[in-house]
Amino acid sequence: MNDAAWQLTATGYEADQITDFGNRFLLANGYMGYRGTLAEYTKAQQVALNLAGVYDRRGDQWRETVNAPNPLFTRLMFAGQPLSVLTQQPLTHSVTLDFKAATFSRRSVFQAGGARVTVSTLRFLSGADHTLGGMRYTVVADAPVAITLTCGIDQQVWDINGPHLTAAAASHFPGGLAVVATTGELHRQVGVWQKQFLPEAAGALIQSEHGQAYAYALQLTPQQPVTLTVLFGVGVDDNCEAVAAKVRAADQTSFDGWLAAHRAAWQGYWQRSDVRIEGNDADQKHLRYSIYQLLAIAPHHARAQSIPARGLSGQTYKGAIFWDTEMFMLPFFLATDAETAHSLIGYRLKGLKGAKAKAQSYGFEGAFYAWESQEDGFDACSDYNVTDVFTKRPMRTYFRDKQVHISGAIALAIWQSYQWLDDLSLLTGGGAEVILECARFYLSYAKAGLLDQVVSIDDVIGPDEYHERVNNNAYTNKLVQTTWQIALQTLQTLEAQAPAEAAKLVARLDFHPLISKLQMALARLKQPTVDDQGVIEQFDGYFKLEDASVATVRARLLDPHEYWGGAYGVASQTQVLKQADVVMMLALFPDDYSAQTHAANYAYYEPRTEHGSSLSWSMYAIEAARMGKTEAAHHFFEQTATVDLTGQSKQWAGDIYIGGTHPAGNAGAWLVALRGFAGMHVAAGRLQFTPHLPQSWHKMAFQVNYQGHAYEVTIANDHATVNEMRKK
Amino acid sequence: MNDAAWQLTATGYEADQITDFGNRFLLANGYMGYRGTLAEYTKAQQVALNLAGVYDRRGDQWRETVNAPNPLFTRLMFAGQPLSVLTQQPLTHSVTLDFKAATFSRRSVFQAGGARVTVSTLRFLSGADHTLGGMRYTVVADAPVAITLTCGIDQQVWDINGPHLTAAAASHFPGGLAVVATTGELHRQVGVWQKQFLPEAAGALIQSEHGQAYAYALQLTPQQPVTLTVLFGVGVDDNCEAVAAKVRAADQTSFDGWLAAHRAAWQGYWQRSDVRIEGNDADQKHLRYSIYQLLAIAPHHARAQSIPARGLSGQTYKGAIFWDTEMFMLPFFLATDAETAHSLIGYRLKGLKGAKAKAQSYGFEGAFYAWESQEDGFDACSDYNVTDVFTKRPMRTYFRDKQVHISGAIALAIWQSYQWLDDLSLLTGGGAEVILECARFYLSYAKAGLLDQVVSIDDVIGPDEYHERVNNNAYTNKLVQTTWQIALQTLQTLEAQAPAEAAKLVARLDFHPLISKLQMALARLKQPTVDDQGVIEQFDGYFKLEDASVATVRARLLDPHEYWGGAYGVASQTQVLKQADVVMMLALFPDDYSAQTHAANYAYYEPRTEHGSSLSWSMYAIEAARMGKTEAAHHFFEQTATVDLTGQSKQWAGDIYIGGTHPAGNAGAWLVALRGFAGMHVAAGRLQFTPHLPQSWHKMAFQVNYQGHAYEVTIANDHATVNEMRKK
Repeated sequence: MNDAAWQLTATGYEADQITDFGNRFLLANGYMGYRGTLAEYTKAQQVALNLAGVYDRRGDQWRETVNAPNPLFTRLMFAGQPLSVLTQQPLTHSVTLDFKAATFSRRSVFQAGGARVTVSTLRFLSGADHTLGGMRYTVVADAPVAITLTCGIDQQVWDINGPHLTAAAASHFPGGLAVVATTGELHRQVGVWQKQFLPEAAGALIQSEHGQAYAYALQLTPQQPVTLTVLFGVGVDDNCEAVAAKVRAADQTSFDGWLAAHRAAWQGYWQRSDVRIEGNDADQKHLRYSIYQLLAIAPHHARAQSIPARGLSGQTYKGAIFWDTEMFMLPFFLATDAETAHSLIGYRLKGLKGAKAKAQSYGFEGAFYAWESQEDGFDACSDYNVTDVFTKRPMRTYFRDKQVHISGAIALAIWQSYQWLDDLSLLTGGGAEVILECARFYLSYAKAGLLDQVVSIDDVIGPDEYHERVNNNAYTNKLVQTTWQIALQTLQTLEAQAPAEAAKLVARLDFHPLISKLQMALARLKQPTVDDQGVIEQFDGYFKLEDASVATVRARLLDPHEYWGGAYGVASQTQVLKQADVVMMLALFPDDYSAQTHAANYAYYEPRTEHGSSLSWSMYAIEAARMGKTEAAHHFFEQTATVDLTGQSKQWAGDIYIGGTHPAGNAGAWLVALRGFAGMHVAAGRLQFTPHLPQSWHKMAFQVNYQGHAYEVTIANDHATVNEMRKK
Repeated sequence: MNDAAWQLTATGYEADQITDFGNRFLLANGYMGYRGTLAEYTKAQQVALNLAGVYDRRGDQWRETVNAPNPLFTRLMFAGQPLSVLTQQPLTHSVTLDFKAATFSRRSVFQAGGARVTVSTLRFLSGADHTLGGMRYTVVADAPVAITLTCGIDQQVWDINGPHLTAAAASHFPGGLAVVATTGELHRQVGVWQKQFLPEAAGALIQSEHGQAYAYALQLTPQQPVTLTVLFGVGVDDNCEAVAAKVRAADQTSFDGWLAAHRAAWQGYWQRSDVRIEGNDADQKHLRYSIYQLLAIAPHHARAQSIPARGLSGQTYKGAIFWDTEMFMLPFFLATDAETAHSLIGYRLKGLKGAKAKAQSYGFEGAFYAWESQEDGFDACSDYNVTDVFTKRPMRTYFRDKQVHISGAIALAIWQSYQWLDDLSLLTGGGAEVILECARFYLSYAKAGLLDQVVSIDDVIGPDEYHERVNNNAYTNKLVQTTWQIALQTLQTLEAQAPAEAAKLVARLDFHPLISKLQMALARLKQPTVDDQGVIEQFDGYFKLEDASVATVRARLLDPHEYWGGAYGVASQTQVLKQADVVMMLALFPDDYSAQTHAANYAYYEPRTEHGSSLSWSMYAIEAARMGKTEAAHHFFEQTATVDLTGQSKQWAGDIYIGGTHPAGNAGAWLVALRGFAGMHVAAGRLQFTPHLPQSWHKMAFQVNYQGHAYEVTIANDHATVNEMRKK
């Protein structure tokens, strides 16, 4: 196997890549993420040890995830000056992310007087024990030179709306350091312990504005490498004690043991998740990178945790869970890692209370899930998400109140998980209740015309956020309809398979009176306008909007950071859309529409789509592949598979920084490969494949699990070979 | 009687008052308006002979009323230089508007070499024959001086979105001039004829860039005045020939005859319309001025014409008819001039077709009346009414699509006219059909919740335009409810009094199936939230908006011309309102609410009201007077009675010029006097008075007609004396 397809390497150092590389070279293990930054970096370079699911609010600012103090902060000094990329252009420099092993390494050569000093580091966050991680920092010179190495816990944490950690208590123990702090809002304890090993010198405990560190004075002998080994653990609340004990108990040999366990875990991940491509090495690498991102941020360790829209790359988007998880990432885990899929669903089950509270706060019944979900389903989305670039005023946005399709995404995710995994516990364990409460929410949201009795879903935002407060968005109505259908199917399923539980649930939720209302509402729900060609109108009145091209609309921008949407954005009164909307609906429900409809809508909407969201390309790619436009599909595949590699992704919405990784884009690459190119679909309860490989792909192979069975699938040209591997 | 209370005089000349005085000193006769400009002014000084109900569209700009060529353009020259306020600060200068006679006069003294030349003019637009008007231009010197006087038809017409008149043909006849032109859109013929008399000199026909004129070389003898008399007529389409004949037939003596007939007509107007106040001369003058404005712009001559929101002061607001007419002006005409009231209603009956077409264009049934109504009910309101001051982009506004309360205003106006005049023909002559179609419109607009069955009127703009796209605006819902009630009452009335017509109408409109729906909708219509104190929530969610003061909101403006409303205006997300909204509802339907409710809402909303519309003060004044807060009422009365006198009225909405007269504000002064201070109201079908005079008003007296009876009413302190004058 080609190593290049398992690695991302960047050579040379450029200061303007610091932010981008922090995302691109991210390490993570579901519990925490560590940005692809260098050991000498501080918060100015956006170092972050981002903690999944640990949120805090400072004052009246947005709630966001907490970044822990950095236990890997390491500085090299020569003659009183740092040897750092920040102060000296290195003679050579490279960083590498190894997907297979989930390690980050760095090699830099600095001039230190007459000597050249080479710094090599290797870093990992353990896939075996999610609380642990380590770094090896090796330094070697080509001529004798005296250097100082300092390594400690950097308490100067990068935050967007921080600081979140207060009352930090720093301590030390033989060979080790600790910082234990508390979050301001919920008083959660966050502890970082690290232990250092450097046999060649004794460390002196020092104190700087960054916190405690050990300093080592070293006289390097030519070609004799010296290695600092750092092991660390991060605890939150109850596990702090155990984490501290593990780190204290570690010795110098532990690094190899921890790393080996980590590699073994990743070997397991890849065994069930890899997609092998023959014929296009670049695509192979980009798809592996995409899958790497999903494996890195998946909550392998947790039972009811989900994945934020910017993964674990930092605090952008508040570290919150969006529909991205259910609509883009979940299918990957259903097919490769049922336990993680259960965790993702479990997170939403736990969020039901929050979703019901949100519905109630708006005067609705049932479950209105959070647009930006934090712990317990709390909606972190504020009413002001964008800043007007002209007035610098916050703009009232409606993502929180009007993007009602989120509840449908949850209901659909639960139902599809139940079907894919053939696991009734997904319904009986809380899923059925969520589905029914989502259905109830839509019943309370919908209204019927007094004269025509047509049931409308008014005043919503669909996937295309550039058009706010529209009526009967086709995608949203489809999700509503599907939720209502699923609710009835859920009841039928439970009545057939768990009648006592069904009766109890219906009684507890007082759902019986709603059944006939559901049927009535389904019969009368507004169906979208469809033109002569089969083009589905995105929402009521969309066809009457100005039919300007994306280029025309872009040319109207007065400021490059200006928001395209809102009431007066350049796109708002035109047919230009941010992202797949009708086409997303078609991609999600392919069998409900004719080939002509698929073709007509793709042809109509694609030229009108900005693809201003990482959620857009994959939907167009899947549609294109299914209709045999494999080269167009391949183009969109490349877009979504390289979303975090090009440095071109949108960093700004108005004046708000929204940079970070794009897990839904990464997952989109897998979706295109499997649902698009391999043509994976379920028909009559069976997994089937209708391949549409791009010309350059001679072969693709992968494992996929379906209803408790594992299959080895090989696609060659238009032929699929499927072998069952083992019973569940 | 005090002459000062019948006149408005301004002394001295200041160039920055030109626009304001153009409005303030307006002459009009319902058929045409002539701005209060000077004879030497041209379009740069916004001279306009504005034609009621004659509209034109140029290119894709807003439709607006047409201004005719100016038949009174007169220039005085001395030694080759103009004697004009525009080029020479006059030695003395004054202009006077005489309310009683509806004449405009001007007196200026210029220095002409060693002589002082006094120019005096008198101008009128005939109240007796609406197509005619005249001017006397007298010049006298205190020393011998040679001057030249030129007088002609100025074809350089001031337009906002013009030019509208094309193919203008100028001609002349003995002592006279004519210009006949055609509008671009509908090819309407507009003709202006004028005839001049100046016995002391022979006129020479000359041609300038303004058009044809006669020039008179005059050698003035000290103290010997020379008078130029100009008579003119303005024809539109079919009446052009008759107008031309009248002007051609006129001789020098005609001026006095025309003026006498004009004065007689105005004497009649005043006889039935004057409100006499003892104790406060300023209020007397301001109220008379307000009534003058209404008398001047009323369509006395027409059978189905209405009054634009800026009267006949120009093209602002497109010369269109707004709800201002029905909600503010109509009561004045009902009480003083039934024929004009009939004309106003007749205009809306004629507009039914346009209202039905508008409803249909939005997917509704019934009659959705125009927000900015032009001929035949055409809605001239565009989707973009405001320009963003920061980006200079047009802002999508929703006045046209969402201000649905307009249809209720029409239905209510018809019903109240029928009741006030006790004239069934108002229903049988088309009014019943309009009422039923307005009721049908609301039935098609309303939607019911699937679970709670509550009928909502969502996504509207109420009177307070700063809050767009709100749900269940209390005022709007009240108008909807009233319209539905009126529809049922209309049917009952017709069934009782004209059963054959009732049956025919119900059959023709297929209205029978709607009756039970109306009853159901009435029973389930969303009632506003009311707090513990009785404060009615302006719309769903209003109480949750930021409770900032008007001053706080104003202080947030970054630009003085910035629009307060729209999606992101400084008021939009606060409780600050542009104008009376809930309080307007209370003022219109006083008997439907308790005294506590009136008091609580006045107390709550008044401090939150910007009074950024001339429709606001009168409603607060009426409420204040009714609850005995006579001095607060008096304060608001002064505001509305001087709206066109202070030069302080809002001239801008964003970057759009909206200056002009404010007939609804003028009518508001009358409403406050009658409904507020005199406490006029109908109880148990009888006209009653519950006086609440301001302290300074010792007495007020007026005539009022009700149900075919005329009454002479005198209010002294808290006592009213009512004498019936004569039978109908």
